[in-house]
Amino acid sequence: MTEEFDAKRRDILEGASEVFVRRGFAAGTTKEIAAEVGLSQPAIYHYVGSKAGLLREIALHVGRDMVAALDAGMASSKDPAEQLRAVIHEFTAAVARDRRSFAVFWQEQHSLEAEVAEKLAADERDFVNKVGGLIKALQKRGTMPEGPPLLMARAILSMPSWMYHWYQPSGSLKTSDIADIYCRLIGLET
Amino acid sequence: MTEEFDAKRRDILEGASEVFVRRGFAAGTTKEIAAEVGLSQPAIYHYVGSKAGLLREIALHVGRDMVAALDAGMASSKDPAEQLRAVIHEFTAAVARDRRSFAVFWQEQHSLEAEVAEKLAADERDFVNKVGGLIKALQKRGTMPEGPPLLMARAILSMPSWMYHWYQPSGSLKTSDIADIYCRLIGLET
Repeated sequence: MTEEFDAKRRDILEGASEVFVRRGFAAGTTKEIAAEVGLSQPAIYHYVGSKAGLLREIALHVGRDMVAALDAGMASSKDPAEQLRAVIHEFTAAVARDRRSFAVFWQEQHSLEAEVAEKLAADERDFVNKVGGLIKALQKRGTMPEGPPLLMARAILSMPSWMYHWYQPSGSLKTSDIADIYCRLIGLET
Repeated sequence: MTEEFDAKRRDILEGASEVFVRRGFAAGTTKEIAAEVGLSQPAIYHYVGSKAGLLREIALHVGRDMVAALDAGMASSKDPAEQLRAVIHEFTAAVARDRRSFAVFWQEQHSLEAEVAEKLAADERDFVNKVGGLIKALQKRGTMPEGPPLLMARAILSMPSWMYHWYQPSGSLKTSDIADIYCRLIGLET
């Protein structure tokens, strides 16, 4: 029962992301979302809530994706090069998989409730700080060029982040191939 | 007279970008834009036109920025490493300078008129193709890792592109320092 409820919620959030990417949050309606997922408008309200509730859930889902990618990458090894490689792989896979949610989140920063926006901004700062720590460790070893670690973390995370703008799942490359290329570009052996 | 007209238009477009970033295109009003730039609403219409006209001008301005950065970088040298370095520098400076316009353009893809969206998408494809050509030349020389040149071009251009999301002009680094770090990260000597 709960599993069915959760599956319905996921479907609705995916449909909502689809509509908000195509039309924007302000213009998109729960009627269009209901049509997108083949449910009634009252069902949308029952499973997730209002339009604002849909956006909040999409943003929180993106936040969980970011935290999960960071945690999985950090826990994968004790070696900072391995950890950085794993974070890049995990985050690339997450943005590719949930690109519509990431697109909505980044396009609709101005539509987020302040509390949600602040929580997500804190998650993002933490992400950049942890990756900055890995870069610092690699600079000490002499395997990463000199430069401010936080800026370099931002630069590296740009590559998966920006995929929300251009990535097409119909393309010929697997996300793990794409992540390998990001790693190789910045001198991490793959 | 024409110079004054152009200066007013630029002010209005900057104010409009400011309002659209903060509130979104759908929610932002010409009244707010008029207040932002200290002009009357009729003056906004006189100098640029309707809200749709403001968004069109912002998008076309971003397109000109991209084309100018690409052209200046390509024309700066005959050496592909120098050209790539110059394109990264030019594009980083453009995104930093006009970050609000870039933010509006990327946040409001769904609000653009089809004709403008298509023109800008073509400009962007051309940008990626030309940078892909430089990468191919560097791969032949053995100074750039193997991988699909267009994907690598996307990855490299992600770094300046994504700055619209995080760059603060109050930060301590000059945009040329930031661009140098992007170059160094991908093994281009600076």
